[in-house]
This record gives sequence, structure tokens and C-alpha cells, in this order.
Amino acid sequence: MGTTPSPSYSITLRLEIVNHVGMFGKIATAIGETGGDIGAVDIVKVGKGIIVRDFTINARDEAHEKAIIKAVKKIKGVRVIHASDRTFLLHHGGKIEIHNRVPIKTHSDLSRVYTPGVARICMSIHNDKEKAYRLTIKRNSVAIVTDGSAVLGLGKIRPEAAMPVMEGKAMLFKEFANIDAFPICLATGNTDEIVKTIKNISPGFGGINLEDISSPRCFEIEERLKQELDIPVFHDDQHGTAVVVLAALFNAAKIVGKQLQKLNIVISGAGAAGTACCKILKEVGITGIIVCDREGAIYKGRKKHMDPVKKWISENTNHSNIKGSLSDTMNGADVFLGVSAPALITVDDIKKMSPDPILFTLANPDPEIAPEDAYPYVRILATGRSDYPNQINNMLCFPGLFRGLLDSRAKTVNEEIKLSAARAIASMVYEKELSEDYIVPSIFDRKVVTAVASAVSEAAFKTGVAKRQRWH
Amino acid sequence: MGTTPSPSYSITLRLEIVNHVGMFGKIATAIGETGGDIGAVDIVKVGKGIIVRDFTINARDEAHEKAIIKAVKKIKGVRVIHASDRTFLLHHGGKIEIHNRVPIKTHSDLSRVYTPGVARICMSIHNDKEKAYRLTIKRNSVAIVTDGSAVLGLGKIRPEAAMPVMEGKAMLFKEFANIDAFPICLATGNTDEIVKTIKNISPGFGGINLEDISSPRCFEIEERLKQELDIPVFHDDQHGTAVVVLAALFNAAKIVGKQLQKLNIVISGAGAAGTACCKILKEVGITGIIVCDREGAIYKGRKKHMDPVKKWISENTNHSNIKGSLSDTMNGADVFLGVSAPALITVDDIKKMSPDPILFTLANPDPEIAPEDAYPYVRILATGRSDYPNQINNMLCFPGLFRGLLDSRAKTVNEEIKLSAARAIASMVYEKELSEDYIVPSIFDRKVVTAVASAVSEAAFKTGVAKRQRWH
Repeated sequence: MGTTPSPSYSITLRLEIVNHVGMFGKIATAIGETGGDIGAVDIVKVGKGIIVRDFTINARDEAHEKAIIKAVKKIKGVRVIHASDRTFLLHHGGKIEIHNRVPIKTHSDLSRVYTPGVARICMSIHNDKEKAYRLTIKRNSVAIVTDGSAVLGLGKIRPEAAMPVMEGKAMLFKEFANIDAFPICLATGNTDEIVKTIKNISPGFGGINLEDISSPRCFEIEERLKQELDIPVFHDDQHGTAVVVLAALFNAAKIVGKQLQKLNIVISGAGAAGTACCKILKEVGITGIIVCDREGAIYKGRKKHMDPVKKWISENTNHSNIKGSLSDTMNGADVFLGVSAPALITVDDIKKMSPDPILFTLANPDPEIAPEDAYPYVRILATGRSDYPNQINNMLCFPGLFRGLLDSRAKTVNEEIKLSAARAIASMVYEKELSEDYIVPSIFDRKVVTAVASAVSEAAFKTGVAKRQRWH
Repeated sequence: MGTTPSPSYSITLRLEIVNHVGMFGKIATAIGETGGDIGAVDIVKVGKGIIVRDFTINARDEAHEKAIIKAVKKIKGVRVIHASDRTFLLHHGGKIEIHNRVPIKTHSDLSRVYTPGVARICMSIHNDKEKAYRLTIKRNSVAIVTDGSAVLGLGKIRPEAAMPVMEGKAMLFKEFANIDAFPICLATGNTDEIVKTIKNISPGFGGINLEDISSPRCFEIEERLKQELDIPVFHDDQHGTAVVVLAALFNAAKIVGKQLQKLNIVISGAGAAGTACCKILKEVGITGIIVCDREGAIYKGRKKHMDPVKKWISENTNHSNIKGSLSDTMNGADVFLGVSAPALITVDDIKKMSPDPILFTLANPDPEIAPEDAYPYVRILATGRSDYPNQINNMLCFPGLFRGLLDSRAKTVNEEIKLSAARAIASMVYEKELSEDYIVPSIFDRKVVTAVASAVSEAAFKTGVAKRQRWH
């Protein structure tokens, strides 16, 4: 929300300071007065009558960074040697790299990893395609593919500009699930070309993670790829969100003592995430769902701003055919699920809900209602943010999910696999720990990845989509 | 040639051996008698009356491996616990992996490498596309793209089966030039689709290395990509070979004391490599070139087995319009350059050449004439093999070339860049070291990469194709 200093706007100032008593205090005060939050302070060197120090300071935004530097520059006896923004520094040259699993130091090494020895490996795979899973990176590799059309909250940006997000995602795959994921940012927004391109590059990959592709194209692209490829295809913005929302809902329902299937749920947002949430909630037997978009409730027979996906929603939800604004739909709702935009609901809307309201306000970084405003009126609140309890984050799903898909060599992602992942995530908050402020595990809890991976792998075998043979 | 044991057919036998005096000798003898070459021998464990040892043995081929195992199994008191082929073991799970350049251990780390911090990086690139070179992997990344149509000597194999070669190539990029290259094996052989797919995936890459794409499609694919992309595109099978051949020829001409431009050269092979060699030799002013394919000499007006590329060859070489077989063309030639197939020429052909014959017989692994047969009749012999002097290997070119292209942010590969690379390679054999058996440096000489990179970067700046600004 840009109101508190955060590590994503962290600068390091290297200052040459005249070595007088009280100088440190003067600097700290100047920084504090501009609202900067001092983190680490290091001594770089001590010279004759001067001392060089690095101050690392969290700021609110770029303008705030500049204000801090200006304030420090004003202090007599202080020279700013340089100011570096830590987030930019960290991105310098990219965030991932290739690593060779064996060295090549001699002709003998070379003759095994490359010609002539490699020819035997090629022929072995040529004779049995499945051997690619044993003898190449296919066993552990995922393509993270985007067309840059719906990147973060930034909308359609250049494919080059989407790279830092995809590289970051690749890092998460590696850090949390030891998966080798590679970012592919496409220079086309055409549905046919996206499908063809992904099909063409698929042989070397064990899975495809679609990312930040705008709705409704994302539905067709995923659907067609699922039909045409024999490796799993997963649009994380849809299903990652849906799986984690369902996991959180399993636990929230337990806390308020309501039966899951009987919950009345209002979904704000009919994009990728909203649609996928709607589908997975129906999948577990929830019938009381109303989905709203900018136009308000989606109902059978609505004419304005419809598309094939919204038509499906209109025919499969909102059975009382309620019309009206988002606010109108909230009468008697048990759950509000926002995957839409900031500040769309009010305290008055919450007051219309059934007792023990559950709010998942996932618009990021600014939720559908400010948490501070909502807290007095809700029983359970979850957001997409790390600075409040109950963070609904796709990271709880995709690393473990893909680990399980790759481990079982699943050829697709089916409903049972997604439900198993949701159940596994929910189960990582133990009954006795469960509380209004703890309905999903921490994204840094490594046990979640293991639990999800093993549930997913199990589900792939049970539903007959695992290509791996069990006794291997 | 499969006649001497080599490390690419190396097996490790784990043997449980009854602990009697003389057993080791029996085993060594049995292996020796089948022609196996014992490398390392390790003790794994010593038990009651038995000893377990690992024997690592080089064999000639797979049949030979089996014969060795059979011979060892026959020895009384020896049990083969398991036999593992080292080349296959080494490929298990693939040869490359992704590595994160910074760890993600805390929310603060996460907020910089991913949301929300990453959004600022994205917008910085969105506002200035060239910043992708500073803030993403584009600065150091190369796509190794193949359609699997001409892989090694294996011809058209499945894209999955081409992966081990492309992974091996990625390893060479990393090991020799610290370049992050990623293998992309295409599920299409259609020229238009290949061009479109590569264009679509190009934004995240700083360069494209085309690999093992069959002729004549490779020419059109490369040409179109060069026109349409602002990153360098390099078909290594063509130009990598041409650059190293030219480098070797610079030095060979010096040794025999002939002027480069006046050399009469017969090229056997009109595929990717042959055509590119022909072009680069013309580029340096050599006019006496005749190219032969399966049909014999390519001449103006030939009707059989022609295509647009061969038509170009017919109009730009063979100015005396010589017709006839490969053997016929060799009268008075100074240089024979074979980029074709095994055993195409004879000692009698060499005898027809001018004094001090230079032979580059690069068909791999079996050259156009067996080196042992040729040696008595030639002044200089080079092959593609590591077990003879003068190995003409693309590895002398592509790591340094791409290092230079990336360092200068070259937007294309022009003739001057290729010539500079050839001159740099040639210069790494110093005048005083130059001899018939030493016309190109070793592929393991790391100074070659540095020299080529710096020559290429310099040429990119000189010819105005470098996007990097000099003072950065």
C-alpha cells in the first residue's frame, strides 16, 4: 500500500562521514525524520578523520528513497559516495543461471557428455521416447510460459519486461521444489500462435506452467494444450489460486462450524482466478455460488459484457438468478471471495452477511477492503499479503504440485490431483493449531511441498495418469 | 572407429570375489583377453572370505561391453553384482540444471526477487527494452535450437532424442564461456513454424544458436531469422565449421608457404558445412574453389540434384566449369576439404594434388580417408577427431564467439565478426610453435575463448552492430 517502508524499496547508502562524536546520531535522526527505516549499518573503512559506513534503509517507494538521500546529503560532514537500490542490484544480470551437473575437463569427459558417447544416449531415446525421462532434463524441467498480457497488476507489458517475474517464479520452483524451470516470454499474443509455439518447444520439458496470460484467452490456450500434449499443463493464475483458496476454505469452514457444501459464496472477479475458484468450489459440491464482475452479478440471460466463460458461469451458478450489484449479492453470504480489485466492498456489505463472515480479499497488494476496516466485523480474514495472517499464496501449491507431477510423470493435471493438493495444504495446519488467524500454513514451511507432492503423485497413480511405473 | 577401447564405452563392474590369492590376476587376464582396457580399480568392501571391487573398463562398443561381462562371469569365484555403463549413468536425470543466483529464505528476500519488488524492475524494462540486458538473464542467455533433423551422424531423430546433444552443447557453453544456454528441441520440421517459434521465444534470449538442422532448410531458417530478429542468430554447423576451417587454413598456408588467395581448393560436401566453408573462403579472396556433392563437381548448367543453394555454388565457384567425379576434380588441388562422408578419396587421389597437399578430412568419426593411409602422402592432415593432431572442432569457435556477441550486445553476426574469430583462433598458435602437426590450438586452451571473444566484440563495435555502449 506504499504507506510503510518495505524491503522492496531498500537502498544502501555508502557515506563518508567526518569522524566527530554525534555524527551517527545526526544521520540516524535525518533518516528517521524522513520516515526511513534503518536496517543494517556496516563500517566499510576508517580513514584519517573520516569513517565510511553503509546504511541500509527501507523506504516506502522511489520518491521516498530520493527524499531520504536528499536529507542525508544536507548533513554537514557527510558525503554520499553512492546510493544503490538493493532490488535493482539484485536483478543485475538476471536471477538464475545454468549449472553443469558434471565437469568437462578432459577429452574423456567430453567424449561422454558430447560426441561420440552421447550418440548412444540419443539412439536409446529414439528407440523409446519415455527414456527421455531418465536420460535428459525432461524428468525435472518445467517451462514457465507467458505472453506478458496480465503480468502482476501491471497488465500487458513487453515480453522482455515480463522476464523478471518469470525468472522469480523459476527461482521459487528451484528453491522450494528443486525443479529446473526456465522462463519463456513470448513475442506473440495470438492464441493459435501461443498454442503452436508451446507445442513446438514442449519435447524437452516435463511440464508447462502457464503464467500471467489474460482472461478469457487463458482458458482456450490451456484447454487446447491439455488436449494436445502428453505432459501436464497448468495455468497457475487459475488453478494455483483455486487450490489454495479451497484449502483455506476447508479449514475456515471447520472453524466456523459450517458444512462446506452448504456455504453461500460470493465471488468478486470473473477472470482467470475467479473462474477457476468457481469451478473447484462446484467440484467439491458447493452449490450456493454467485459470481460478480464489473457489471455486478452474472445471471442467466444477462446480455452485457458476456463471453463463453461467463455464459458457462451464468448457467452453472446463481441458481436463484439474483441480479444487481456486488453489494446486493452479499445478503446472507457465508463467504466473500475477492479476486478482483481494491476497495470494492464496505463494512456495510459485511454486515449483510450471515453470522461468522469469512472474507478472502485477495486483490494484491490492495485488498477488496482494507484489513483494518474489516477486522471488527469478520470472523476470518485472509489476504494475499505477507504482512497479515492467513496469506493465500499460490506458492503453497505450485512447487509441490509440479514436484508430484514430475515424480509420477503425470501426463495431465486432473480434478482429483487438484483436490488432493488442496487437502494436503489444509492438512498442514494441524487440528489443534487451527484458529481464525491460522487457516493456511506458512509459505516457508517446507513440509507443505513434500505433503502436496506426495498427495499429487498418489492421485496421479490412482487416476491412471502417471506414466512412471510404480516399481521403479 | 570402434577399433580401440574408448571412454565413451566405459563400464563399471561391481564384482564379489572369493578372497583367494591370484583372483585379481585371473580377472585382469580375462578382461585383457577380451580386449578390455582396465582403468580404475577400487575396493568397495571386504567381507568374510570375500572382497567387493569396482573395475572400470574401457570397451570398443556395446557388444564388446557385453563380451567383457560374459568373460568375467565365467570365472569361478566371481559374481557380477552389477554392471553400469558410465556414459548412461552420467546422463541419468540430465546434464544441466538451474541455479538460483541469490537465496530465498525470508519474506524480505521474496519481496525483492518476486512480488511486490519485481514490479519496479518490470516497469523499468517496459519503459526501456534495452534494460532487459541489465536486469534479466538476456545478457547471458542463448537458446540452442534444433528440429532434430540432422543430429550428429544420426540423421533425423525424435526431438526428445536430440536433447542429450543439446544439453551437452549447453554444458560446453557454460564450461568454456560461462554462457547460460538452454536446449530447445522442436516438435516440428516445418520451416515456417521453426522460424515463427524461434521468433516467439526470442525475447528472453541474447542469442540463438541453431544446431543440427538439415540442409538446405537451415539456410532459409537462418536467413529469415537474421532479417527479423535483433539478436544474433548463428547456425553452428555452418559457420562454426567455416570459421575453424579458415583459421586452420590461415596457418596451413603459412607452413607450406603458399599464398592463401591462390590456393586451389576442392570441397567435398555441399551441405550446411560445405556451403558455409565455400562462402567464407570466397570472402577472404580465394577464387579457385570446386565443390563436389554425391553427383560429383557442381558446375554451371548442371541439372541433376540441384537446389537454390547449389545453383548459387555453381555460379560462384568452379570458374573453369570442370565436370566429373570428386576424384577428377583433385588434379592439381592444393587443399582437399572434406565435410562429407567416410572413405570417399584414395591415396591415388592425393597423388594427383599439387606438392605439399593439405587435407582437412572432417567427416566424423570416420574421415574421408583413414589418416594412417593418408599420412605418407600429405604435408598437413587435419581431422575432426581428438585422437589425431589438428582437431578441427567447432568448440574452438562458438564459446568465444557467443561470449563476444553477448559482451558487445551484437544484434547480428556479420562477415567481419566471423573473420575476426578465425584470425583470433589462428593467432593462438604462435609463429614459433606452428608446425604440420599443430595448426590449431587445443580445444581445452582457455585462452582461445578469451581471444575469440575479444576479437568478436571488437569487430561488432567496429562494424556498428554492437548495442552496448562503450563507456559502460
